[in-house]
Amino acid sequence: MLTKEQLKRLESAISPKSVVIVGATKEKHRVGYSLLESVLLGGFQGRILPVHPRHDMILDQKVYSSIEETDEKPDLAIIALNEQSTIEFLDTCGKFDVKAALCVAGGYSEVGDQGEILQQSLKEAAERNNVLIIGPNTLGLINSQVGLNATFWPTELEQGGKVSVITQSGGVGQMILCQAKDEGLPINKWIGVGNRAVLDFDDYLQLLAEDSSTEVIAVFMEGTERARAFVEMAQEVVVNKPIVILKAGQSSLAQRCALTHTGSMAGSYEMYQDIFEQFRLIQADNVATLVSISKALSLAPSPKGSNIAILTPTAGPSILLVDALENSDCNLTEFSDATMEKLDELFINVPVVLKNPLDAAAVGYSGDSYLQLVEILLEDPDVDLLVTISTEHKNRVFPAAEIVELSRRKEKPVIVLFVGSRTEESYMYRQILQSGGVPFFINVEDTAAAVQGLIKYAQWREDRNGAN
Amino acid sequence: MLTKEQLKRLESAISPKSVVIVGATKEKHRVGYSLLESVLLGGFQGRILPVHPRHDMILDQKVYSSIEETDEKPDLAIIALNEQSTIEFLDTCGKFDVKAALCVAGGYSEVGDQGEILQQSLKEAAERNNVLIIGPNTLGLINSQVGLNATFWPTELEQGGKVSVITQSGGVGQMILCQAKDEGLPINKWIGVGNRAVLDFDDYLQLLAEDSSTEVIAVFMEGTERARAFVEMAQEVVVNKPIVILKAGQSSLAQRCALTHTGSMAGSYEMYQDIFEQFRLIQADNVATLVSISKALSLAPSPKGSNIAILTPTAGPSILLVDALENSDCNLTEFSDATMEKLDELFINVPVVLKNPLDAAAVGYSGDSYLQLVEILLEDPDVDLLVTISTEHKNRVFPAAEIVELSRRKEKPVIVLFVGSRTEESYMYRQILQSGGVPFFINVEDTAAAVQGLIKYAQWREDRNGAN
Repeated sequence: MLTKEQLKRLESAISPKSVVIVGATKEKHRVGYSLLESVLLGGFQGRILPVHPRHDMILDQKVYSSIEETDEKPDLAIIALNEQSTIEFLDTCGKFDVKAALCVAGGYSEVGDQGEILQQSLKEAAERNNVLIIGPNTLGLINSQVGLNATFWPTELEQGGKVSVITQSGGVGQMILCQAKDEGLPINKWIGVGNRAVLDFDDYLQLLAEDSSTEVIAVFMEGTERARAFVEMAQEVVVNKPIVILKAGQSSLAQRCALTHTGSMAGSYEMYQDIFEQFRLIQADNVATLVSISKALSLAPSPKGSNIAILTPTAGPSILLVDALENSDCNLTEFSDATMEKLDELFINVPVVLKNPLDAAAVGYSGDSYLQLVEILLEDPDVDLLVTISTEHKNRVFPAAEIVELSRRKEKPVIVLFVGSRTEESYMYRQILQSGGVPFFINVEDTAAAVQGLIKYAQWREDRNGAN
Repeated sequence: MLTKEQLKRLESAISPKSVVIVGATKEKHRVGYSLLESVLLGGFQGRILPVHPRHDMILDQKVYSSIEETDEKPDLAIIALNEQSTIEFLDTCGKFDVKAALCVAGGYSEVGDQGEILQQSLKEAAERNNVLIIGPNTLGLINSQVGLNATFWPTELEQGGKVSVITQSGGVGQMILCQAKDEGLPINKWIGVGNRAVLDFDDYLQLLAEDSSTEVIAVFMEGTERARAFVEMAQEVVVNKPIVILKAGQSSLAQRCALTHTGSMAGSYEMYQDIFEQFRLIQADNVATLVSISKALSLAPSPKGSNIAILTPTAGPSILLVDALENSDCNLTEFSDATMEKLDELFINVPVVLKNPLDAAAVGYSGDSYLQLVEILLEDPDVDLLVTISTEHKNRVFPAAEIVELSRRKEKPVIVLFVGSRTEESYMYRQILQSGGVPFFINVEDTAAAVQGLIKYAQWREDRNGAN
């Protein structure tokens, strides 16, 4: 857990006014090049200070020979030096009161005894100089709020996300970012914890708990020795912000792999599962559902109960969805008498069986009657959340804006499962829906995970309020 | 099972020289319009014969008042009439020796006793007139080989696919088509079996077994009363062509839903699972893996054993992959001494632990050393299949063509797990890889399912050859 002073320093480093990039280089294949390029591509608005003893200009940026020459006390130092030089550079950081150093080099605890000793030196240098360490052995960090892409994966950033990510693997973290992009979900902050020489999961949770622009926290974890500190911090955080977690190491073999990766014991998967459940973290099975649950929690209003309805123009997908919701906390509600009367009227002379999931068949093809059905189901007091399934069709317009309006008016979450491809048209529908608080999925398992995540978190909050 | 004569007639209907579309209409929201539009959009090369008593032209096509007026004996009749008129029209089909009728109307066995009686009449009319029935209550059928999109979901078709689909749900069938499109997998034939009044799964399996352009068969099933005929036919077919199956109804609730859908009992899921395993069908958990397994089987060469290697520039994704392969038939091999010697040479002074999965870290970032590693691992006699993980990066070119070349030269399957987004660039890599027999995935679970599917099918064939 961070002291107040440390938290303040870390906040300054994550939203810096100035960053120094030590070891910036012209050689395109090196991380010192990609890191500078990332900071530029991200659109960082503060001062960008590349440092290299022998370069003048890189990527049209003036290069300084030392921090001293920049005439600045940078909030964040991005250190693209080798494992030994990184440690040495921390004395310089201390001299200029750098708040935190992002250390990307590997070669520490993940490579055995020799590395363990180096990591200890790194930690001591950090303490001696009052510099917080992010990493080492990390892809970096992102804060899209200030346009800071401090990773050696140069990409542009999209603002406006409410989900922030803490990841123990750069590669999986990149998967999460890519999946989020493909799902139309901007990411707010992204932190690669690396070997956690100084700062660990609990510290980053504390940081994001205090960050007003973060509303949902997504975590990828291999393992941590500070598991207790993590879950205790999590328990506090989830009162206000849901935490969704993907834990690696389900297999014994994967656990051994993790050991030589970031130097952490993965621990028994079942033990972690039980603890996460007890401390009210929402568990995801894979990267896709980590993103889909986080997306739903960040976009949709909270359901008032666990009763769900499913509306579909074609039965098959709803059967798969019901399969995927088996063993979830959702209850496939029975429609109220009032609802059944309204449906009877609408389906007069249409040969379908009226039940939940409601297979509207041909009635569901027309925009108007589809919307009528959405409204009828949302009006049912026994429906807390509605999943509407729709199919891509050239000759039908999907009433995205109207669904947003209905979800708002009835104050109930609606989730759209769209049977279609990833096309410009479906992305257009998605944009309308998601900007209006209606999560959009094209995949049954993502939809089911999102529904379950929404209901689980709402139940937990309800329990807690009941207990108070 | 079809007689030789029936099979010949069904083949003619699926690859027709002429199709009549009965009930073609100008009203855009009706299936009679979408069906004609689909046939046109698909690029069907044979004669297209819209029939309607009161229209002259629809979609720039001459409309005939009756089949008689067309002066043709159409191979396939697409019937867009209601459930009663569909039955009546079969007499006309018989008169003009139509081989098969595609009946899209619902209102038969899926709606209860009354519909059951209608379906019996439909069946009798079909037998009386020697007309095979596809459906009723089906989205239609697709044969991209002849540009025939006979569904009421108008889309263009892509030729060249080796995977054909049999689906009991139009909606799930559409999901499969959309997922396949998103995965860069063209579909050869696609058949919505509907209520299976006449033709059932076993008949369509028989058809596709005889179809030389189909190399893999993907099935979505809710349930069938002819389960024995299906698995017995499947057992024959899988000697030459793998069958991948997704079975709905894992939950008891989903089983009840299926009953009112296509009028079939779903049956115990566990029973089906056991039977499928025994009869050597490859089971998929969901639509995405149904597609990914089918894709791998249709593209990659067959592995000679179950030993796999994983090469990655970043550990995290490989840990998730190992997790996903837990309980599979794959063996994460130990590298041979010769391989270890080559790796030791390449990784001199690089602080990594050399094991499988091989975390190449920085060495894996450069195209040249990455390719060297691919070659070293493919040369290991204890490696039957290689998964290479790569990450999207602006400053690195992914050596797609070279990987294709290595997979061919070493005659071993390679599967690429790409940590990236769905961008034009990644689709370009995918195109190069997949056209060269290297399946490309961006998702861990899809990759794991593909690896497992390839190894399982190869093992079964090996067992069978051993037994003979």
